[in-house]
Amino acid sequence: VKIAILLYENMTALDAIGPYEVLSRLPGAEVSFVAAEPGLVRTDTGFLRLEATRGISEVPEADVLLVPGGPGDEAVRSHAKTLEWIRGVHGGTRFTTSVCTGSLILAAAGVLDGLRATSHWTSLEELRALGAEPTSERVVEQGKVITAAGVSSGIDMALRLAEKIAGRDFAMALQLGIEYDPQPPFDAGSPGKAPPHVVDIVKGVMAR
Amino acid sequence: VKIAILLYENMTALDAIGPYEVLSRLPGAEVSFVAAEPGLVRTDTGFLRLEATRGISEVPEADVLLVPGGPGDEAVRSHAKTLEWIRGVHGGTRFTTSVCTGSLILAAAGVLDGLRATSHWTSLEELRALGAEPTSERVVEQGKVITAAGVSSGIDMALRLAEKIAGRDFAMALQLGIEYDPQPPFDAGSPGKAPPHVVDIVKGVMAR
Repeated sequence: VKIAILLYENMTALDAIGPYEVLSRLPGAEVSFVAAEPGLVRTDTGFLRLEATRGISEVPEADVLLVPGGPGDEAVRSHAKTLEWIRGVHGGTRFTTSVCTGSLILAAAGVLDGLRATSHWTSLEELRALGAEPTSERVVEQGKVITAAGVSSGIDMALRLAEKIAGRDFAMALQLGIEYDPQPPFDAGSPGKAPPHVVDIVKGVMAR
Repeated sequence: VKIAILLYENMTALDAIGPYEVLSRLPGAEVSFVAAEPGLVRTDTGFLRLEATRGISEVPEADVLLVPGGPGDEAVRSHAKTLEWIRGVHGGTRFTTSVCTGSLILAAAGVLDGLRATSHWTSLEELRALGAEPTSERVVEQGKVITAAGVSSGIDMALRLAEKIAGRDFAMALQLGIEYDPQPPFDAGSPGKAPPHVVDIVKGVMAR
């Protein structure tokens, strides 16, 4: 299974690394971290760089394409060569996927035209403006196109993908291997569950 | 808040990046990725390198120390300089923390002597042999020493830490910001919940 994960400046690290931790353990997985040019890519909080081992010109195809999100999505959406690469790879994938505002990039590339899709909860209207039909479900499957909501949702998405690729037992083994038995200390992980003043804190931060 | 995250060859990426995604967003957070020597560190499935911006000799202190786990833990446990560094930094931390088999490293450094602690579920007996009192709770607090279970548990641990450092509202805002409203497709994230034949698959893989 050839898996291509797009990296770009100001992306959110967990959007990529959550699914990576699951998908890289699939039988026969070969993962490429791909950027416009190979090299180190700085993630959004500024402290961490991830290595893109290959440039987009070196990776013309993949079985699974994963596009993470993050504040850098806007720059990628106006980078014609990367959008062209996404369209090209998408033509031959078994699954084309995104996490968080990675869906805005897929939409800008034309992959989500008319499809139901999700994104970070603060970006759903922007997703609509780019031609998709937004929904606040955590993981949205439309044929081979799978979009996931904000940041941590990529782990849930990857486990569903693992089931499709390697079967239910193996996917459950991956969940057990990463001991994914979530016990968050609060029940504030979606705008419908968090107290209104907490929702306002996040909206304020995202607006800046 | 000065946060030091230890990196080493053959560590598990999500052990570090899960908590990083939460902790790096604390007010005034300064995160250092620290390794025995600065440079790129290859994580356990072989496809990803993370950048250690500083060597241990450059980071004598931190408010929060985070030690991730992974198959490389064994080599670190016999690396005297790193264990000495951990003891030194631990002396001045507000919180000393681990994810997964990072607790075996803390134990080898003497930090967990006689303390209740946790680790990846396959490593609890090894943790006992190193002088800690193992428990299968997901996050274990013993004064300023906090250990978390396998891989993905670091996110839950980091949210608890965020509450201690920045208060409940801010911690909930971080949970909402990363949209951590987990919806795993299976209920197989701990050995008590997964079907026995799935537990056996993971035990087999871990034994190799």
